[in-house]
Amino acid sequence: MPSRPPLEPFPVSTPAATLVFTTVLTQGPLSRVEVGRRTGLSSAAITKAVRPLLDAGYLLEAADGAKGTGLGRPANPLQVDPGRAFFIGIKVTGDEVIGVLTDLTARIREARHIPFTSRAPAVVLEVITALTAELRTAAEEYGVPVQSLGVAVSGDVDREVGMVHYSPFLGWRDVPLAELVSGATELPTVVDNDVRALTVAEQWFGAGVGADTFALVTVGAGIGCGLVVGGRVVAGAHGVAGEIGHVPIDPAGPLCHCGNSGCVEAIAADPAIVRRIREVTGEPVTTAEEALALARSGHPGARQAYAGAGHAIGLGIAAVVNLLGPERVIISGEGLTAYDLFEEQIRTAFAAAAFGAAKECELLTRPLPFDEWARGAAATAIQTFIEPGKA
Amino acid sequence: MPSRPPLEPFPVSTPAATLVFTTVLTQGPLSRVEVGRRTGLSSAAITKAVRPLLDAGYLLEAADGAKGTGLGRPANPLQVDPGRAFFIGIKVTGDEVIGVLTDLTARIREARHIPFTSRAPAVVLEVITALTAELRTAAEEYGVPVQSLGVAVSGDVDREVGMVHYSPFLGWRDVPLAELVSGATELPTVVDNDVRALTVAEQWFGAGVGADTFALVTVGAGIGCGLVVGGRVVAGAHGVAGEIGHVPIDPAGPLCHCGNSGCVEAIAADPAIVRRIREVTGEPVTTAEEALALARSGHPGARQAYAGAGHAIGLGIAAVVNLLGPERVIISGEGLTAYDLFEEQIRTAFAAAAFGAAKECELLTRPLPFDEWARGAAATAIQTFIEPGKA
Repeated sequence: MPSRPPLEPFPVSTPAATLVFTTVLTQGPLSRVEVGRRTGLSSAAITKAVRPLLDAGYLLEAADGAKGTGLGRPANPLQVDPGRAFFIGIKVTGDEVIGVLTDLTARIREARHIPFTSRAPAVVLEVITALTAELRTAAEEYGVPVQSLGVAVSGDVDREVGMVHYSPFLGWRDVPLAELVSGATELPTVVDNDVRALTVAEQWFGAGVGADTFALVTVGAGIGCGLVVGGRVVAGAHGVAGEIGHVPIDPAGPLCHCGNSGCVEAIAADPAIVRRIREVTGEPVTTAEEALALARSGHPGARQAYAGAGHAIGLGIAAVVNLLGPERVIISGEGLTAYDLFEEQIRTAFAAAAFGAAKECELLTRPLPFDEWARGAAATAIQTFIEPGKA
Repeated sequence: MPSRPPLEPFPVSTPAATLVFTTVLTQGPLSRVEVGRRTGLSSAAITKAVRPLLDAGYLLEAADGAKGTGLGRPANPLQVDPGRAFFIGIKVTGDEVIGVLTDLTARIREARHIPFTSRAPAVVLEVITALTAELRTAAEEYGVPVQSLGVAVSGDVDREVGMVHYSPFLGWRDVPLAELVSGATELPTVVDNDVRALTVAEQWFGAGVGADTFALVTVGAGIGCGLVVGGRVVAGAHGVAGEIGHVPIDPAGPLCHCGNSGCVEAIAADPAIVRRIREVTGEPVTTAEEALALARSGHPGARQAYAGAGHAIGLGIAAVVNLLGPERVIISGEGLTAYDLFEEQIRTAFAAAAFGAAKECELLTRPLPFDEWARGAAATAIQTFIEPGKA
């Protein structure tokens, strides 16, 4: 076994210091004055919060050659040292484990994936462990310790206790994944639902920075949604939240796997589009790639299926916006590769169904390579490293 | 003019003291130990927070004859003195102003209403002023000062600046109502959207107490929804939130006044039910009362219209629950008078469309006499009195 740098706790113990650090981490570089303005803390409180973080090397005062303000105070902005600590993010898909090594700002430094042939938890655990070992070895070449590990899984996941209650895609029920992974890797481990993990990444390091309320809508194999309301990721009192895929929009629509009819997902997820194209065109299409190729070739039936998907997604987004009034909606997911085939319909359906001033809500798109799901998991590990109490 | 008791500020200045007071106000009577458990504050911090509140008479230590714990500490629970301060709540409807005088726990002590013949802001302001004077006179008979006033209006209302941006029902645009009312009454005035005001009343004094996340759905002339997520009432980044009435559920449904088709409100609000009954039965029904009488008489077409309304409301609630995962949904509003005609359909449609564990969300009903809307306005006044910074 390669020798491991010792784990160390994050040198922050007060809510004020956590606030200062997360503000600089997510919005920096920032001058101390600006940190004061954004956090509402006094200059003395900021000095007290910053000192141990500077001493431990988590914060730097960038020596960018700027002159002092003339008031005897350094004007060098505070910024995080991204290379001060590394984290590992893991995403478990239906057939492989994707892992990334990120720095403290969630920038991906290394990415790996290992396929698996069985979805049995013990097999997947072995693959996660092997991938983690690979990424730790890579981290050693940087000379930076890996502090902790995040794992993202689709389905009903309780982050607080690290339990995968139910993942239909993997066929798992009540798998204590955090305990299993931390036992095998000897790293502190956070387990979260994959869409929520991605939402944390957007909130801290992406298009959600600075937004009190926003929605992340993922399109592709399923239609998912992560919600941040009042600065907090919505988890749902019964473990269910953000199920935009199961907002009912058309009683005459196709049957959904949930048993209902006319859910957004039953019209707009990849399998629904594939099925619809098969029904309408008679072509033997079975995968999202084949469906996309047929539509790109100009086949009107195939294009119509994508247009219908876009319309359904637009109505689902309108439901989110009419209910929550988010500042913006970020559309992402592997389904974005087909975005040119349904973007117009998403926007048109949204604009028609958004109520009054809710139409002003900005819709923006973010391409999402598969590594990004693993990066989301790393973001949850970073978040827990900095704010251990916050699930 | 009758003499007025002088206004006084609330004797609380720290976040800890506010937390202690609101905990006792909304959940009391509570022992100091229990207050410590629920707030996470130390016994010393609670002592410090409680002293000025006891001195000023806002809190009482109930002398209920209970013995001490034997540890030298009084076991008498802390409770609010409801009669320590009074508040006025005003609801402006389409044809009258309803006003209530409440105590500090939002219990209604007096209720009055004055009809008006014109919806012009100046006329309505005069009626509000007259009603406020009546209620202050009533308060003087109790010998309790009125501290402030809340006004609830339907539509797009910005509580922070006290502005009614748009109230379609009243035909108002950009009326600075808080400024007008406080100028005329010399009372600090809060103006809020009526459904959000009712949500505050439920959160602080009703079925929402203790719930981190809940929804209040109002049925009747319109279909509204107030949302509390993470303990905060959702206001919407663009002034729109909780528009369950404009969640699109059926592309083949009737045209809505918002220009869209198949909104929940276009199927389930009173005017939609009346119109549907007229279309289906040919009966010259024009009011909600007539519609209800016809359905109660057993007319199948009329009963069918109510059943359809219940189905639409159930789907709208499912959208809320699938997206937000609230602990509970409170169904209220004047439309509850017809609840026996659509309760079953609400519950059936909700259960079918709720995703997975979201089905566990509790649906409960609260009758809502019209005075309750005015009580909601009083609750916003109480909230602002205690937490001036919180909009």
